[in-house]
Amino acid sequence: MTNDDESSKILMLMAHRGFIWGPSPEIYNPVKGSYEFGPLGKLMKNNLENYIRKLFRKHNFWEVQCPLISPEIVWKASGHVERFFDYIIQCENKDCNNLFRVDTMLEQMGYDLTEINLNELQEFIEKEKIKCPDCEGNLGEVAKQNLMITSKLGFPSSEYILRPETATTTYLTFPRLYNFNRTNLPIFVFQMGYAFRNEISPRKMLLRTREFEQCEGQIFIRPDQELNFEPYEERKNYKIKMWSAKAQEQNDKKSVKITLEKAIEQKIIQKPAYAWLLYLAYDLVKGLNIPEKNIRLRQHKDDEKAHYAHDAWDIEIKSKIYGWTEVCGVHDRGDYDLTRHQKYSKKKQLFVPGVKKGEKIIPHVLEIAFGVGRLFFFALEQAFKFEKERNLLDLHIQITPVPFAVFPLMKKPAELQQISRKIYEDLIENDISAIYDIAGSIGKRYRRTEEIGVRYAFTIDHQSIEDKTVTIRNIEDMSQKRVKIDELIQLATNLLHNKTTFEDIPEI
Amino acid sequence: MTNDDESSKILMLMAHRGFIWGPSPEIYNPVKGSYEFGPLGKLMKNNLENYIRKLFRKHNFWEVQCPLISPEIVWKASGHVERFFDYIIQCENKDCNNLFRVDTMLEQMGYDLTEINLNELQEFIEKEKIKCPDCEGNLGEVAKQNLMITSKLGFPSSEYILRPETATTTYLTFPRLYNFNRTNLPIFVFQMGYAFRNEISPRKMLLRTREFEQCEGQIFIRPDQELNFEPYEERKNYKIKMWSAKAQEQNDKKSVKITLEKAIEQKIIQKPAYAWLLYLAYDLVKGLNIPEKNIRLRQHKDDEKAHYAHDAWDIEIKSKIYGWTEVCGVHDRGDYDLTRHQKYSKKKQLFVPGVKKGEKIIPHVLEIAFGVGRLFFFALEQAFKFEKERNLLDLHIQITPVPFAVFPLMKKPAELQQISRKIYEDLIENDISAIYDIAGSIGKRYRRTEEIGVRYAFTIDHQSIEDKTVTIRNIEDMSQKRVKIDELIQLATNLLHNKTTFEDIPEI
Repeated sequence: MTNDDESSKILMLMAHRGFIWGPSPEIYNPVKGSYEFGPLGKLMKNNLENYIRKLFRKHNFWEVQCPLISPEIVWKASGHVERFFDYIIQCENKDCNNLFRVDTMLEQMGYDLTEINLNELQEFIEKEKIKCPDCEGNLGEVAKQNLMITSKLGFPSSEYILRPETATTTYLTFPRLYNFNRTNLPIFVFQMGYAFRNEISPRKMLLRTREFEQCEGQIFIRPDQELNFEPYEERKNYKIKMWSAKAQEQNDKKSVKITLEKAIEQKIIQKPAYAWLLYLAYDLVKGLNIPEKNIRLRQHKDDEKAHYAHDAWDIEIKSKIYGWTEVCGVHDRGDYDLTRHQKYSKKKQLFVPGVKKGEKIIPHVLEIAFGVGRLFFFALEQAFKFEKERNLLDLHIQITPVPFAVFPLMKKPAELQQISRKIYEDLIENDISAIYDIAGSIGKRYRRTEEIGVRYAFTIDHQSIEDKTVTIRNIEDMSQKRVKIDELIQLATNLLHNKTTFEDIPEI
Repeated sequence: MTNDDESSKILMLMAHRGFIWGPSPEIYNPVKGSYEFGPLGKLMKNNLENYIRKLFRKHNFWEVQCPLISPEIVWKASGHVERFFDYIIQCENKDCNNLFRVDTMLEQMGYDLTEINLNELQEFIEKEKIKCPDCEGNLGEVAKQNLMITSKLGFPSSEYILRPETATTTYLTFPRLYNFNRTNLPIFVFQMGYAFRNEISPRKMLLRTREFEQCEGQIFIRPDQELNFEPYEERKNYKIKMWSAKAQEQNDKKSVKITLEKAIEQKIIQKPAYAWLLYLAYDLVKGLNIPEKNIRLRQHKDDEKAHYAHDAWDIEIKSKIYGWTEVCGVHDRGDYDLTRHQKYSKKKQLFVPGVKKGEKIIPHVLEIAFGVGRLFFFALEQAFKFEKERNLLDLHIQITPVPFAVFPLMKKPAELQQISRKIYEDLIENDISAIYDIAGSIGKRYRRTEEIGVRYAFTIDHQSIEDKTVTIRNIEDMSQKRVKIDELIQLATNLLHNKTTFEDIPEI
């Protein structure tokens, strides 16, 4: 299969097997970049969200949920009204008049964006004599287009903004969180939810859409705590693959696998707390069974950094379809956010005691920002494996839509179905997701379930009636063992929570 | 405590204990009807959503997730552009000019809305000589105000609509669902997510807000299947409290507790499939430990029904603070929706085979529509119990934010803390939510945890060091037993999944 063939097949299977449908609404004129999660996609997305929640909770993050719609002052204070824009350019040919996002246009023309200064786009376009990619017409001037989506509400109506990120709405709750945390810092908190951006050209399926979901974790912390951070000590020997701004500038194409401690010694990063957050981001992605060769941390160069960032690294994943793409940003935001909100709101509660007696300081913020849709998309596309006789969806057991299947070998005798049905219902009763299928040959049923990410299939055969055992089949390598029906629920639970492996199951 | 005192105390505790904060953003000028879920509120809301998901999944509903933003044609087809409005009226006094939602205004003036025909509001206001409730000025004419919120997106920009309900976006996926379900009916599907309405006057905390979350389940079904519905047979002896339109018209103030079968025999409802959906709605609410005296099903009278409804019943809950309020609507929508979408989209895939050979029909829809925020609010407010010495939050173990607490009796000897910490970490490791607290006397720690819904507290004392047992305290009645540390995880798991009760724990 060529790469293009494989990409098409993956996208086709995502739709046909009920993972992602769209662009939506399919029965009308679809909206660009608008997608639906079908039944299997939604099960997987719920599991992914639970996987993320569990990891954040394990590290003592609280979760909050804030409004999607907020007044303009919030986004003036955050800096988004002034600085949250894309550079756009329009074709001057009246028959075309197409509008382009400048960076995307240049990228598609084959320019290496990492070598272009975004503040000098106009000069670059003139120097290179770049024309409209659609009609070869002359292009107008580079302009800035704010990406926030507004809406009018109330009577008389006022303008509100659909939040372009969750992070800022979390910052607004700081005084409440500080009291909730019994006035202690650091505070660990995350929010998972929608954000909205008026993208110039939605594209690449779930990767660039106008409504999308984020999971953004924040640590409110004092500067002295950033340098003396207990969780870091436990993880400082953890290795991550880093591609620093310096390496990028020196045209060094390769990332370096290095411990957090070494990265700090070598001054690639500065702060233990920030280093720990890089570990958290990296570990979350790796834990989804995404091969490490397709993961790296890339540092933002100075001209790439967002207006609030002291330091910024992206987790990038090498997509089978779209190449290296950001899935998570880790940002050292300093005291930018709470200082701005203090200035705009004049609220004293944004100050906290510093280390020196009587000193009042504004807490600093370290942020980890995931795109949930992107993480979903990458976890799914990386899992497709096309073998000679079958399509295997090799998803991590904790995020796969349905980890178990129950099959009676044949429809008759009725006892086969009765035993199977009982096993299926026991699994469901114990919160273990499973499918029950009696349609078609056992081989066909294996093929169907392999394609949607089932990890283990229990098959009930004639021997089951005699000795109360069934076969368990490991979908990955198609190997089989017999297990006792009595021990099946406990076994499934242990497999689901990684407390046992297929290899560890004793032969009976 | 008077009712008002109790209401204030409940609302105060909801905020102070980290359940609901707002109106948001609190550090700026808050937006009416805009709230945040704090750390405990969010944990509880996640649990509530999982509780709902589990119940729907148990009844073989698939889940989908559709876009929040959709093109106008969708809402023309659904009937919302034409018919989704509130009646409003404005004061003509130029110094006032206040705007009112007519039904709310009349209700607050003490009129019984069930006795007013909504199509004759203008006549009613003139007849009763009603003046502006704020300034006694003359009121203008009754007008219709569409409740949908629009937004402009794209380049050049077009108008889009923030969906006013999830249901319609689920209907649009019918052709996909039908194939996914191997072209079988009925199809059971639900969607849990945001909807947006430009409410004239957001009020009553989470009960009427402009952005809110729904959980709407749909059954796509043939008319013959509505009358011959297997799940109904299993539940026909289930009793629900019904207050029919007829009883309301006859001024009969009381609901009648009756089996589904009797309700059909007496022609209070017509269809077994619809009856089963009433059971599902009722059972979901009752399962949250909301006392049955505070639950009833109320039928819509003809002039109340939405434009799509053949029959409509609301589950109402008697709020401690706001009185009887709808939390769920169950609607027999007939073939209204798919017929409209077929007409507007011209798509053949909205037809399915009927019973007669060669016949093509449009599937019917039965709907169950919950307000998630409302359900959350009612479950929470009903759980507050103020006793002489303590505030108890008596939440169902499956939705309470943190079901377990672990306390070393005292800070020393260090072994007490070591054993406690180990138990706490074991619970977390096994996905069992718990808090660990060493601050203050054991009595104070009990009080603090009772107030936030902890169900069971494990206390580690000197005897624990000797014989590896701890006390488990049932927060509800403050009774205690000793249990073995070795068996604690299994015990907690069983309590959490209702597989054992505190009473069943053997004394050792």
